[in-house]
Amino acid sequence: MNTNQVVDVIALVESVQSLIDERDFAGIVDAVRPANLEQTTSLLKRLPPNQRAIVYRLLPKDSAIDVFEQLSPGLQSDLIHGLQDSEVATIFTDLDPDDRVWLLDELPATIAPRLLRGLSEKERQLTAEVLGYPKGSVGRRMSPEYVSTRTDSTVSQTMQRIRSRLDDAETVYTLPVLDNSRHVIGIVSLRALMRADPQEIVSNVMQDASVINAHEEAETAARKCAGLNLLALPVVDKEDRLVGVLTIDDAVRILEQEETEDSARQGGVEPLRRPYFATPLRALVSTRIVWLLVLAIGATLTVQVLSVFEATLEQVTVLALFMPLMIGTGGNTGNQAATTVTRALALGDVQVRDVWKVLFRELNVGISLGSLTGLLGGVITSIIYGPAIGLILGLTLFAVCSMAATIGGIMPMAARALRVDPAVFSNPFISTFVDAAGLVVYFLIAKMVLQI
Amino acid sequence: MNTNQVVDVIALVESVQSLIDERDFAGIVDAVRPANLEQTTSLLKRLPPNQRAIVYRLLPKDSAIDVFEQLSPGLQSDLIHGLQDSEVATIFTDLDPDDRVWLLDELPATIAPRLLRGLSEKERQLTAEVLGYPKGSVGRRMSPEYVSTRTDSTVSQTMQRIRSRLDDAETVYTLPVLDNSRHVIGIVSLRALMRADPQEIVSNVMQDASVINAHEEAETAARKCAGLNLLALPVVDKEDRLVGVLTIDDAVRILEQEETEDSARQGGVEPLRRPYFATPLRALVSTRIVWLLVLAIGATLTVQVLSVFEATLEQVTVLALFMPLMIGTGGNTGNQAATTVTRALALGDVQVRDVWKVLFRELNVGISLGSLTGLLGGVITSIIYGPAIGLILGLTLFAVCSMAATIGGIMPMAARALRVDPAVFSNPFISTFVDAAGLVVYFLIAKMVLQI
Repeated sequence: MNTNQVVDVIALVESVQSLIDERDFAGIVDAVRPANLEQTTSLLKRLPPNQRAIVYRLLPKDSAIDVFEQLSPGLQSDLIHGLQDSEVATIFTDLDPDDRVWLLDELPATIAPRLLRGLSEKERQLTAEVLGYPKGSVGRRMSPEYVSTRTDSTVSQTMQRIRSRLDDAETVYTLPVLDNSRHVIGIVSLRALMRADPQEIVSNVMQDASVINAHEEAETAARKCAGLNLLALPVVDKEDRLVGVLTIDDAVRILEQEETEDSARQGGVEPLRRPYFATPLRALVSTRIVWLLVLAIGATLTVQVLSVFEATLEQVTVLALFMPLMIGTGGNTGNQAATTVTRALALGDVQVRDVWKVLFRELNVGISLGSLTGLLGGVITSIIYGPAIGLILGLTLFAVCSMAATIGGIMPMAARALRVDPAVFSNPFISTFVDAAGLVVYFLIAKMVLQI
Repeated sequence: MNTNQVVDVIALVESVQSLIDERDFAGIVDAVRPANLEQTTSLLKRLPPNQRAIVYRLLPKDSAIDVFEQLSPGLQSDLIHGLQDSEVATIFTDLDPDDRVWLLDELPATIAPRLLRGLSEKERQLTAEVLGYPKGSVGRRMSPEYVSTRTDSTVSQTMQRIRSRLDDAETVYTLPVLDNSRHVIGIVSLRALMRADPQEIVSNVMQDASVINAHEEAETAARKCAGLNLLALPVVDKEDRLVGVLTIDDAVRILEQEETEDSARQGGVEPLRRPYFATPLRALVSTRIVWLLVLAIGATLTVQVLSVFEATLEQVTVLALFMPLMIGTGGNTGNQAATTVTRALALGDVQVRDVWKVLFRELNVGISLGSLTGLLGGVITSIIYGPAIGLILGLTLFAVCSMAATIGGIMPMAARALRVDPAVFSNPFISTFVDAAGLVVYFLIAKMVLQI
């Protein structure tokens, strides 16, 4: 693969597709050769599954595994299905234990044992260790191939240890430092080791370590590793003994996946498991239809509410004109609060125990927003539609904003407390709920003001 | 700072706050001592600005700068305002050039020159270099303190070079490899150097390098660095000559900030520049009120639309009952499409040039979703409200979903083409637009079916 030559990926996709149609495999090899790792990966992401397998098989042996590692597990598993057993076995052997487990989670249960049998005894053992932790935990995403050292080792002994593990360790740049019972006492960087006197003992050059329990959520661990600027976070068991390390590149992958999930849920859609153009239309529909129907069923609540107030509506049809504006503003206020609190929860800035503080803050913010919009909206509509309508709209905006901000702020916390992804209970869900509640408020205020 | 002792941050905040009230500074020192870097940072994030400055000054000298680096630029600048000039100068000198620039961007323009004057000649030069690149570019976030080597150097010469830069280089684990004109020809990892024969020349152990232009957006560079699992991405000028490196920890910070922005905009709120509890209520209101008003003004379009159809509404009041359901479903469909496409754009899976492909896919998805919801909704309401209403709702759902998915898919691409953050044109914006358009469609269909 060449370095920085300018390769137009979109043009490459088109030329590769026509070469596939012409069955010109040598032509494909030539066309793909100038592309670097990133461009080759983009190419594969944009091809449909059957064409992807063809191009993958034509990649040079040494770069194929690098490209494979760049793909999301969804695409990896598609690719596996399009390859022959011997090819799959080769890929599987070449992967690191943690990447292997990531892929296994995507594959049908029947394939996994066959693939595992193909591994060497040592590799099988390492993989089984990672497989032993629950899905979604950091144990499942850590690497068991780490280099560690001991508090009483010397720097030169440690350097020796690193040199012996250059080929297989996940990282050699950050080493957990252990006591005699394998407890993590500190971490030491290769840089600090290189800077130190070779006869110095490790405990004099190590730093304090942050560690994480292997059963903690992978997202928590990844956020910790990234937040503390660590190249590797030691992962420990219940007795605080080292079982693996989470490296920064894996932490970044975990966070990217979590962000994709959060953003999708915030928009009321299931996350895609493949890049956009690699996702079949049918899959795009299925990531959306369930949520759309759930929300539509929720929205029938608004129909019920309006049925109750149908007589009022018949009497004062002008009230109907402002319905979308009232519920829209409520929905927006609720979304704003939910978005802010969901993100603060994800970043660890807010915890479930802060629920009363958040309630208080969001209620306050809602009252401020409601006062501002209510006053403005009330005055403007008074001028155009008369004081009665102006008063109704002003009061409704005030009440709806106060309510929506509070609900929007509390919902993600409730979700987290119930151990559901806070983003699930998020924007479209809150809009739907706030719509119905907002209509009740609107018509009650209207009936009160108009005395009907 | 101690290692893994269990410290309850929320309890710590409370005890520190009461110690501050009692002016018991020795007590604060004792209370904070058991907390590790992460916990101390959380503590500071949760305190109001004046208390934060007090606690910060009581931290041990050697850990204070580590804590400072963990804070967001917004908090850093708050803190700076609460400290004395000499304290600020010390912090400023201890920061790396790229972190310094990040902070400078947050400070009032009057403070910057004074701080810069306090630096050594060399540090000032390094900082000025980074300051020379436009805001938002990777040049502004790269580190100019890199170690590089040359294609024709030997491994042992390169190791010697690394040893001489252990104290000041941003990273020593990934080195750009240059030719005689400072062009980046490859990269070599410290691990590969340690594995190689000391007499080997570097070009035989290096790998192909991906590089990025210093004027590219920081987000693009960060996504590239993270996506390729690099510990450092070489940053080059227009002539492809090395000017700095973007390290993975900076890439992670950039991505986290971008995710926070995208998620906020997706929810129709300006991103917070400080952690949730460090943000004053007034600031929470101001991040929301502008968007809320903009959206409310947009939503007055729905009032206009409904005024046009007021006669129809008076004649058939039952149509009002389904308005929130119809426009809500449209809004949800639009949001789903916008969320999916915005994320695909952020990840680089979709580019602006793909606009026709995206239009085609989203129209197709919209038609599928519209057919499913329209059929289901039409049949159910036919049974309850009679065939005419059923037909109106079925047709409206079909039309609104098709339209909303297409608009929702295209909007983020239009934003990107106009060089606006795609997330800005996003969910609440699309809902507002789709609400008005959906109402037009609804009443036109109703008039047609009811022949009024």
